[in-house]
Amino acid sequence: MHDIAIIGAGPAGLSAAITARARNKDVLVLSNKPQDSPLAKSHLIDNYPGLPKVSGLALLEQMLAQARSLGAHFEFTRVLSVLPMGEHFTLTTSDANFEARSVILALGTPQARAYPGEQEFLGRGVSYCATCDGMLYRNAHVVVVGENPEAAEEANFLAELGAKVFYLAPKLPPGLEQGIFQQAGRLLAIEGDMMGVTGVRFAEQCEDAGSAEADSDRAEGTLSCQGVFILRSQIAPSALIAGLELAGNFIAADANGCTNIPGVFAAGDCVGKPLQVAKAVGQGQLAAFAAVEHLG
Amino acid sequence: MHDIAIIGAGPAGLSAAITARARNKDVLVLSNKPQDSPLAKSHLIDNYPGLPKVSGLALLEQMLAQARSLGAHFEFTRVLSVLPMGEHFTLTTSDANFEARSVILALGTPQARAYPGEQEFLGRGVSYCATCDGMLYRNAHVVVVGENPEAAEEANFLAELGAKVFYLAPKLPPGLEQGIFQQAGRLLAIEGDMMGVTGVRFAEQCEDAGSAEADSDRAEGTLSCQGVFILRSQIAPSALIAGLELAGNFIAADANGCTNIPGVFAAGDCVGKPLQVAKAVGQGQLAAFAAVEHLG
Repeated sequence: MHDIAIIGAGPAGLSAAITARARNKDVLVLSNKPQDSPLAKSHLIDNYPGLPKVSGLALLEQMLAQARSLGAHFEFTRVLSVLPMGEHFTLTTSDANFEARSVILALGTPQARAYPGEQEFLGRGVSYCATCDGMLYRNAHVVVVGENPEAAEEANFLAELGAKVFYLAPKLPPGLEQGIFQQAGRLLAIEGDMMGVTGVRFAEQCEDAGSAEADSDRAEGTLSCQGVFILRSQIAPSALIAGLELAGNFIAADANGCTNIPGVFAAGDCVGKPLQVAKAVGQGQLAAFAAVEHLG
Repeated sequence: MHDIAIIGAGPAGLSAAITARARNKDVLVLSNKPQDSPLAKSHLIDNYPGLPKVSGLALLEQMLAQARSLGAHFEFTRVLSVLPMGEHFTLTTSDANFEARSVILALGTPQARAYPGEQEFLGRGVSYCATCDGMLYRNAHVVVVGENPEAAEEANFLAELGAKVFYLAPKLPPGLEQGIFQQAGRLLAIEGDMMGVTGVRFAEQCEDAGSAEADSDRAEGTLSCQGVFILRSQIAPSALIAGLELAGNFIAADANGCTNIPGVFAAGDCVGKPLQVAKAVGQGQLAAFAAVEHLG
């Protein structure tokens, strides 16, 4: 049982971890790998006080090393759900469960809105985790919407289980198994009926994501399927914790980082603009103080 | 005319300066010297993300160098008042006036409460500036309450003008002129009548400020005088800007740093606890964004 589980290892999550460790709490950070963070792609950050002209990746690595040296634990994995269990929370990933007495959400910039049909068919054909739900689709047709670095691996896993896999992504990854049908494009909608998912609509795209042409869809297609695996780096906050109050695409939190769920706090880009490192670091610290106070 | 005047060069003020410069605003920072900041006395800060195990002074110097290299202007001086002038603000110091279209207060930890009688007799015997008001006390008895590094200099100036100076401080500084009466101690109250100040009550103290003995006052004294110069590193926010709304000892500000006065923003320790660097840096950035938005 950890005192505080922090989801996300960007500036907000790492600041929370550092301050929580300074208050001697047992801290577990669950996150993507630093190099997969959007911030890691930033070449130059010049307005973070104390570290002039630093790259996003160097900044992340310095903060992460600091949190680690202070004794925070790290697991580089994807949290699929946070379940309130009364006095504590259970956090599930594809291969393990973790328990913590409080949770800080430092999820980063909110994803674009859910796909049409995503919420409606979640658990009735829509899944976020091949390892968890793959066995349900052994001989079925499934669409894999590949939006995270491990998506190819999960698609291969589904193919090995015997599913007929249709892989859809703006940019196709290397390493997909031969039997997988590959389509450069983006998901438009998930369709279904009372029983669950029946198919998807998608837009075909040029694979060269950098070009102007890529932005203009070339043709629309449809496909019959029984399952849709949406493999994002991040689960939408509303899908992560049932009942979490939002403010638009952001998590609703007060100035101390308290959300509407006691014991759950939020900080950084996921609670609102400006999407800036210094602001995230300050909010991460405040959320850590709020969590420490909650722990009593 | 500056776009933004920032009072205070601690983590909140410097973060505001850095972000405001990144938005290409003309920025003037008015503050004490970094080495006079309370933070400069902190030997080890280990919970500021990105700079592990840093001293307070090193942290301040790095942030200051960064703000300077981005083009922020600095004046190491003490702001005595901020006057709203319609479309802009005038900031007065003992020897100059500055004008700015917006003001960010990053004043640091609020001073202890005002001395009994301080507010009542402000402008009727109580002054914060020897250079400004010294001439009014040419042949009078004045008490100098020395709480900033320049207090000795200001006391000497008063003595040169012909005032009879009684210098009161917990720790007496070197360099006071011979004619000045020196007393280790602390002010208890300022007394007066309809016409203004008539005297002070004070507690004599052991000069060795580090010892437990120093905390226990030895004897109480009284002194007749016409003027009391309270020379602090920082003017209380309520004395600095008329009408500024407070929340206890802190400045009342919303989550974006907006105060009740349009164009005046606040960040860092002066708006509330926790008194921490990361939190101050985040708030400084938010106040800068709010000021930039105000400038339109």
